[in-house]
Amino acid sequence: MDLNFASDNIEGASAPVLDAVLRANAGPAPAYGADPWTARVESRFAAMFEREVAVFPVATGTVANALSIAASVSPWGSCLCHFESHVIDDECGAPEFYAHGAKLIGLPGTGCKLVAAEVAAAHDALPKAVKQMPPQALSIAQATESGLVYSVSEIAALGEVCRSRQLAFHMDGARFANALVRLGCTPAEMTWKAGIDILSFGATKNGCLAAEAVIVFDPALAASIAYRRKRAGHTFSKARFIAAQLEAYLDGDHWLANARHANAMAERLARGLLALPGVRAAWPAETNSLFAIMPEGLDRALRNAGALYHPWSARALAPEETVNPGEVLVRLVTSFATSEAKVDSLLAAARSAGGAS
Amino acid sequence: MDLNFASDNIEGASAPVLDAVLRANAGPAPAYGADPWTARVESRFAAMFEREVAVFPVATGTVANALSIAASVSPWGSCLCHFESHVIDDECGAPEFYAHGAKLIGLPGTGCKLVAAEVAAAHDALPKAVKQMPPQALSIAQATESGLVYSVSEIAALGEVCRSRQLAFHMDGARFANALVRLGCTPAEMTWKAGIDILSFGATKNGCLAAEAVIVFDPALAASIAYRRKRAGHTFSKARFIAAQLEAYLDGDHWLANARHANAMAERLARGLLALPGVRAAWPAETNSLFAIMPEGLDRALRNAGALYHPWSARALAPEETVNPGEVLVRLVTSFATSEAKVDSLLAAARSAGGAS
Amino acid sequence: MDLNFASDNIEGASAPVLDAVLRANAGPAPAYGADPWTARVESRFAAMFEREVAVFPVATGTVANALSIAASVSPWGSCLCHFESHVIDDECGAPEFYAHGAKLIGLPGTGCKLVAAEVAAAHDALPKAVKQMPPQALSIAQATESGLVYSVSEIAALGEVCRSRQLAFHMDGARFANALVRLGCTPAEMTWKAGIDILSFGATKNGCLAAEAVIVFDPALAASIAYRRKRAGHTFSKARFIAAQLEAYLDGDHWLANARHANAMAERLARGLLALPGVRAAWPAETNSLFAIMPEGLDRALRNAGALYHPWSARALAPEETVNPGEVLVRLVTSFATSEAKVDSLLAAARSAGGAS
Amino acid sequence: MDLNFASDNIEGASAPVLDAVLRANAGPAPAYGADPWTARVESRFAAMFEREVAVFPVATGTVANALSIAASVSPWGSCLCHFESHVIDDECGAPEFYAHGAKLIGLPGTGCKLVAAEVAAAHDALPKAVKQMPPQALSIAQATESGLVYSVSEIAALGEVCRSRQLAFHMDGARFANALVRLGCTPAEMTWKAGIDILSFGATKNGCLAAEAVIVFDPALAASIAYRRKRAGHTFSKARFIAAQLEAYLDGDHWLANARHANAMAERLARGLLALPGVRAAWPAETNSLFAIMPEGLDRALRNAGALYHPWSARALAPEETVNPGEVLVRLVTSFATSEAKVDSLLAAARSAGGAS
Repeated sequence: MDLNFASDNIEGASAPVLDAVLRANAGPAPAYGADPWTARVESRFAAMFEREVAVFPVATGTVANALSIAASVSPWGSCLCHFESHVIDDECGAPEFYAHGAKLIGLPGTGCKLVAAEVAAAHDALPKAVKQMPPQALSIAQATESGLVYSVSEIAALGEVCRSRQLAFHMDGARFANALVRLGCTPAEMTWKAGIDILSFGATKNGCLAAEAVIVFDPALAASIAYRRKRAGHTFSKARFIAAQLEAYLDGDHWLANARHANAMAERLARGLLALPGVRAAWPAETNSLFAIMPEGLDRALRNAGALYHPWSARALAPEETVNPGEVLVRLVTSFATSEAKVDSLLAAARSAGGAS
Repeated sequence: MDLNFASDNIEGASAPVLDAVLRANAGPAPAYGADPWTARVESRFAAMFEREVAVFPVATGTVANALSIAASVSPWGSCLCHFESHVIDDECGAPEFYAHGAKLIGLPGTGCKLVAAEVAAAHDALPKAVKQMPPQALSIAQATESGLVYSVSEIAALGEVCRSRQLAFHMDGARFANALVRLGCTPAEMTWKAGIDILSFGATKNGCLAAEAVIVFDPALAASIAYRRKRAGHTFSKARFIAAQLEAYLDGDHWLANARHANAMAERLARGLLALPGVRAAWPAETNSLFAIMPEGLDRALRNAGALYHPWSARALAPEETVNPGEVLVRLVTSFATSEAKVDSLLAAARSAGGAS
Repeated sequence: MDLNFASDNIEGASAPVLDAVLRANAGPAPAYGADPWTARVESRFAAMFEREVAVFPVATGTVANALSIAASVSPWGSCLCHFESHVIDDECGAPEFYAHGAKLIGLPGTGCKLVAAEVAAAHDALPKAVKQMPPQALSIAQATESGLVYSVSEIAALGEVCRSRQLAFHMDGARFANALVRLGCTPAEMTWKAGIDILSFGATKNGCLAAEAVIVFDPALAASIAYRRKRAGHTFSKARFIAAQLEAYLDGDHWLANARHANAMAERLARGLLALPGVRAAWPAETNSLFAIMPEGLDRALRNAGALYHPWSARALAPEETVNPGEVLVRLVTSFATSEAKVDSLLAAARSAGGAS
Repeated sequence: MDLNFASDNIEGASAPVLDAVLRANAGPAPAYGADPWTARVESRFAAMFEREVAVFPVATGTVANALSIAASVSPWGSCLCHFESHVIDDECGAPEFYAHGAKLIGLPGTGCKLVAAEVAAAHDALPKAVKQMPPQALSIAQATESGLVYSVSEIAALGEVCRSRQLAFHMDGARFANALVRLGCTPAEMTWKAGIDILSFGATKNGCLAAEAVIVFDPALAASIAYRRKRAGHTFSKARFIAAQLEAYLDGDHWLANARHANAMAERLARGLLALPGVRAAWPAETNSLFAIMPEGLDRALRNAGALYHPWSARALAPEETVNPGEVLVRLVTSFATSEAKVDSLLAAARSAGGAS
């Protein structure tokens, strides 16, 4: 029985996305993004964001983030972000590579969320002589690495910090859809209307094979990206196959349905697991993951039952929270493809382990 | 009617490759290349090359070349190549980006082929003080940008130049299959047995959606590539979808059949077109492209008939050859998906234009 | 009256160093380091360190550090250092530039000193997957940014951490001489015998116009530096003028005398200032600087009297120490050129301010 | 007897420059360029160029060129220059390092001089798709590597090519003074009035120890240079010692007198040497060097007599000129410090060798 909750990238693609790839295999088409699929996706994004946008489809979230940050900071500049963000921790220095040595400065925040006043204070306290790398951008993840969601007003407050300090404002939207359906707002409200200049729009985790897009709201940031993408080897010759994924993903709100399902499965998981003795949430399960603090015995029992999931860092816990001796902090992730049965199997395994045992 | 001979990347994917992508969509699998598809592809390459190899699947030829060259030269080193090679001309500086400022030094050669004695002489004539960037690698394309094929002994002669001068030897195999079936030798004979240290193994142009692989024969060059690939954003989370393409591509010699067909279509095209008055080959059509020098009138007529193909540079012509006033040099490319009917349609259009008219 | 204690780089050069520059202006000499001055300096360093060393004279401490770190880590690697070290805070990203995007990871430690067990623990806790930048070096400053000195055994303990974890071990010796005379050991004992692989040997702050040297103990690290230095524009055509400074600096232990004097002046300053009510040392004044916590009133009075010095960050204070409201933390620096009279003038100004007033 | 004509960087510094360094050693001064020497040099340059300029003193010509080019092109852009220019051939890739992988494109031209119409044609013929690196700058050397001088109208014609094609226009003025006195025009006429945007102003070869300056006429290019210089380790703490050299160099037209002398010595050398049988000039000796084609016998005799000079590449000869079997092409360089007696000694040695003997 499948008890794999390791990540949302363990799944394949959703059926409509895969169908679209099949259908895109129809005769010759211009290469390198001059194809009709790419053109339609660009229009689709413009409609979705209710404004002109520059769209750069790519195939991984890492390159989407790296291109976005590189377009936002000088090689001698710095980018503020959470100290446990994906860009600083999990991309083997991709932003530093693409931005030619720029620095990521990690700031604290519970559940990997940054708070506007704290970002402003941290920014303003940074020395600003030539010998220091000037802060030029802020990057947040929506949802965060902890699965939390910034409210629209929280984003707007950060956007105001950026606007008043001339920082480019980047959103890592690897789980953009999961955050969006949680908030119930529009894509425009969650991004440029709240001050976002450039967005890594994720789709792979939520149903695509390998498709993301850099969405640029600030035209000044867009100018360099076509060149940066090409010299990084991320301009696909048969670009229609990336565009076709995105088109199907966005079509008829398939992406939102996928995200709603993933979030609901995390909620189901949370409901069941947090009811067990000795189990509590590290943070609320706001999107498609559950970060649970549980007794080591339960963890052991689950793993013996074949469950897969990652232990997690406690660095982003709230100051008043802690992982006690005998406890572990773990992350379980659901996806568009997670069935209720799969969740219930995990819960059954947990219950039969007797909870804290 | 389809008269598009612009490139071999205008086509979609071959049916078996696409089927494999569909079939790979089966339940959860470990991410980032820890999946069984990737493991099988690694074994398949080892068997095919009759030795241990390090395999790094990627999704574009540009990144395969850039990773290979970056692994082969220091940031202050240089890489010899043909002056009209893809790496120097068509990748927006990807090798320079990945290799942090290393230099590509373009050498001459008819049909984009380098000659061992000339490479040796050019290398030896380069000044070698610290103020010059030391030559550390040689990169050739098999087949070349002009569609020509190095014989095994020609490669081996270049390999000996590299060995004796401590140059890493890279092969850009964007059209590896087309060259291989032309030579009728084994993959091993065309690569490491002739001195190749690192190979960009191309598959996209010959039937995949987006799948290539860096194949490393020199273990010392392999050590850095996993990191380089990751920080470039080319390590796919759902890596099985790249591996599945490669697996199907290599299975049952599907790749060789595709290449044989593409080459045969170029030959058919050459046979027909070169028979027309005033048309001659810039170089022999050894793989899946025809570089023809033709009267402007014929070119105009073909374009009026809807044919698509690129004008081409005359810089790599043999010294005794020239494009005369009233003539044009053009490239027509065939692929695994080019039908005889399509070729014949082009030929019919050419004939009805009356040749040199 | 001169009350400038802002830094040790506000002074000019010492007389013997300047004389040597004058004397070096004698007829033609080979350029780019092939001159006899450079050769003699290399020998002098070898004798001083009691072994073969590779010597790369440069003109700033920033480039010495950047070359050293770049030679020690891959572009995708990381270098551990104190979170308030010069390399991470005051060089505008020079290490990241020279190392092509490598990351500096800041670790805590009172007075900018790292503790071996803590470095080991921090290193071992870092995730080591391909998606993280592997730690490949440790960089310490001797003396530290807080003016503290590692004992030989403390360095050796860090050296053992490096050796057992395959980290290159770099010492930023911008104030090497001040630390050395404080310890009273030999240059060899303070460096390679304690595990140092590569050293930024500083001389500018202690009497030169602009002269430093990268000293390499690990031959494997030396290979790339000549190229790295040249492509950074730090290979001087009239290199004799750098070498002549270093030669005079090292001659007859001039450098050690300079450092002893600078340290003594800091001690004199400390003795006087710390005797005033409300003034205490943030850390002991072990080399040529005093970090004092003093009442704001005293600070104001000193500045009104014309004294120059920098306020300082409290981030490296011992956990039990703090800067209270109404207090400031400041740094005063002495040098080879600081006279007793200058120190006494500052002290007089402080005393006439009535101390904590 | 001194017969060293290898380069103009074999000499030390001129007396007034050295005196200025001595005099600058007077008490404390603010570090990192906030000193009065630097301020005065900035004013001096503004007066000399008859307009506002941004001035960035540095210590080598390589870094001056690299900063200038890096400020002028994107990492994915290219810079046109002569194929034998110093920036492409003799700086170990410094421009590529500082510009993060940008490409230098070498163009032909007799005596290393580029011709406006040919630059325009070469530029316009470059493919301009995203896959090519867009040309963004032109760099010329005044005087050229062959010692030739562009006339003001020749520079202006190149400037117009740049203006109409939006290329930044850089002048490598390593031998700026020698060219200026040859032309007899003003610094303004030879630079920004003819379209130069950014200048490497050389002073080391003509009398300084180690002092150059990047002079920026286009304010848009100046913004990044302070950061670029700092992160490269080229911002000197005791910056007064660089500025003092420049101040003395420019004072009372010392620099022009030095250059006039150097040029006159080259002329004297040319007059004597070219009168010998079998000796001819590769190009006219317009500045402080003589490029002579001479019989191998004469070359041998001179070297036996102890003369030092470099053999030279024939690649920049005029198409109708050639170095015949039995001949060599050599470069002899004079400087501010070359005496008439030294020139005459060389000539005597040549004459006693019997010319072509």
